[in-house]
Amino acid sequence: MEECKPILNTGLRGFKVATTKISDVDGLAGKLIYRGYLIKELAGEISYEEVVYLLLYEKLPNKKELDHFKKQLAEERQLPPELILSLENRPKDALPMDILQAGAAMLAHHDPDAKELSLEAANRMAIKLIAKFPTIVAAWSRIRNNQKPIEPNPSLSHAANFLYMMNGTIPDDELTGFFDVCLVLHAEHSFNASTFAAREVASTRAHMYAAVTAGVGSLSGELHGGANTRVMEMLLEIGSVDKVEEYVTNLLDTGGIIMGLGHAVYQTDDPRAHILAPMSKTMGERTGETRWYEMTKLLEQKGKEAFKRKKGRDIYVNVDFYSAALYYYMGIPADLFTPIFAIARISGWAAHVIEEQFGGAAPKPVLYRPDSHYIGDYCGPDLCAFVPLEDR
Amino acid sequence: MEECKPILNTGLRGFKVATTKISDVDGLAGKLIYRGYLIKELAGEISYEEVVYLLLYEKLPNKKELDHFKKQLAEERQLPPELILSLENRPKDALPMDILQAGAAMLAHHDPDAKELSLEAANRMAIKLIAKFPTIVAAWSRIRNNQKPIEPNPSLSHAANFLYMMNGTIPDDELTGFFDVCLVLHAEHSFNASTFAAREVASTRAHMYAAVTAGVGSLSGELHGGANTRVMEMLLEIGSVDKVEEYVTNLLDTGGIIMGLGHAVYQTDDPRAHILAPMSKTMGERTGETRWYEMTKLLEQKGKEAFKRKKGRDIYVNVDFYSAALYYYMGIPADLFTPIFAIARISGWAAHVIEEQFGGAAPKPVLYRPDSHYIGDYCGPDLCAFVPLEDR
Repeated sequence: MEECKPILNTGLRGFKVATTKISDVDGLAGKLIYRGYLIKELAGEISYEEVVYLLLYEKLPNKKELDHFKKQLAEERQLPPELILSLENRPKDALPMDILQAGAAMLAHHDPDAKELSLEAANRMAIKLIAKFPTIVAAWSRIRNNQKPIEPNPSLSHAANFLYMMNGTIPDDELTGFFDVCLVLHAEHSFNASTFAAREVASTRAHMYAAVTAGVGSLSGELHGGANTRVMEMLLEIGSVDKVEEYVTNLLDTGGIIMGLGHAVYQTDDPRAHILAPMSKTMGERTGETRWYEMTKLLEQKGKEAFKRKKGRDIYVNVDFYSAALYYYMGIPADLFTPIFAIARISGWAAHVIEEQFGGAAPKPVLYRPDSHYIGDYCGPDLCAFVPLEDR
Repeated sequence: MEECKPILNTGLRGFKVATTKISDVDGLAGKLIYRGYLIKELAGEISYEEVVYLLLYEKLPNKKELDHFKKQLAEERQLPPELILSLENRPKDALPMDILQAGAAMLAHHDPDAKELSLEAANRMAIKLIAKFPTIVAAWSRIRNNQKPIEPNPSLSHAANFLYMMNGTIPDDELTGFFDVCLVLHAEHSFNASTFAAREVASTRAHMYAAVTAGVGSLSGELHGGANTRVMEMLLEIGSVDKVEEYVTNLLDTGGIIMGLGHAVYQTDDPRAHILAPMSKTMGERTGETRWYEMTKLLEQKGKEAFKRKKGRDIYVNVDFYSAALYYYMGIPADLFTPIFAIARISGWAAHVIEEQFGGAAPKPVLYRPDSHYIGDYCGPDLCAFVPLEDR
């Protein structure tokens, strides 16, 4: 069936631009599928490392394959000492996503695989990037506070090691498990803006670091991954459960939007939000500070009601809505929420870069190079006549 | 008129995804227009600084405006000392485009404007990026050879200052003029892959540095800006005029492509190639080494003939074809050709980021978030049933 609707200025919303075997988002049914598996069947059942394996190698690993893969990832966590030095040279008030973007680009400088356009090199770069992203984020969270980065611990899982590098203490199983689920839920989401940016760059045959660096940039925007930080800022601004209703009314009256409500694809609740919410509740009880969860829950209810009243249609929670309070309960500063999104999504980006360059989903790899509609009528319907500088 | 053709796996070729006032490429007529002006009327008549002004502020400057603008740009050429330090920490064999990508990302760390989403901040970031890109490239060309970077000279034009920072000598007027024309020709080209990547990132409301960093990544690919380096590598590989014909025959017989021939949009010769060719010829005569120009010319003729014979249709030269020998005559190493493309194109990227975020070309800013067609039939037409690790 051919597309036959105007594409101009739609942000390509609803246009299927490429075939993919990696994931599917059914926005109407609220289903997310990673390589054949429903996310709600995977979350809580498998580790992030298993998801990475699934995304990269198109099947769930058996015990032996998983052990080998975990070892490979753990061995690649270290950053080159020169990269730590370069991070230590950066201004301490730099935005963490900007540090991660520069860090991703700098990793290319240390890797000969960046000079080789092959599937083997791409797979190696994928492992290195997935292994090193948490180390960059954790190193920066310490460097900016004038602390020494903590060396990765190869005996810990991907999730536990990140929390360890952040805080210097090994997290317990419940905390590790919750964080692991967060990574699993954020790993992949088809042609979202950052993945599309990464694929776009990869389509020129640029290497994986160059492509992933674009993905980080795209994710940093507040309409994309930056939203989880904004949700937390909103919760902090509201401050208490009794102020939620007033906040919602004021915001919608002044034409504002509630961060974390609404999504480009889902026309029902984001399936990931339903998995995050109970973890946020448990963490609230565990820390004895239930208000961030309660505020989120009330904000969802009041926000949905107000939106329906105001606009006459429904709005739904997305993945950023319940992840915000959850990360906050884990002791993670709000401005690191988006980098944590990147720590998870790097596996999806890597899988997409590989599919774009070597997957053969398309009949032949082509460059993303759209057309545009020129409306530069600076001299009416005609071209402008050139006037030399002295006569202007 | 609605689009009504399959979009899937086309690389969006021929699909008008957005309105723009910045430039127009008429691929059939071989016309390139910057904000109302034909490129062939501008090239040789105006400086790169005037083109930047035109792209950013939608009109050609008068003498007073231009003087002020040139001063603004010249004042922003310096890099933060910490950025030079970070560059000096990078491995010397890093790819120059990878250095530029990291450098672009690192500039954000030093600029409070990166934290402000406003047109004013965007315009200031545009000037800083355009001013500093040449300094990063020139600094790296020296650092990697264990030389101290040369401080920018504010009394020189944008073009002359770059050549001066590269070599330490002030170029004469002819050389400066030729390089200036190269910058003018490469400044802007509508929704090419790197500009689309930059707009895609900007559409999430990420800041200009994040967006431009994506553009650099996209430009680095050999199907995009990386092509000019590949053209020079091809010329060096062929080595002499008498071997051109044999090279072309062998290449097409083995299914290879001739770099610099063919373009996503032009169905005639790239208008920029016709402006570059005579400059390459003059530089050949000036340096007493005419073969690179002569090889390029013969390669164009033989390549076009062979393609027509083989494929039954015409192929045309693009901007990278004649720029390669020209830059080489200027004493620029082949692996810096693509960074030089970026030094020029940064003005186009900046103008597009501003249009994407503040231009109002679209009725309302929307995120680029396409859909995809899922073909992950890993378990036939059904979803896969989850199997726990111990049973796999």
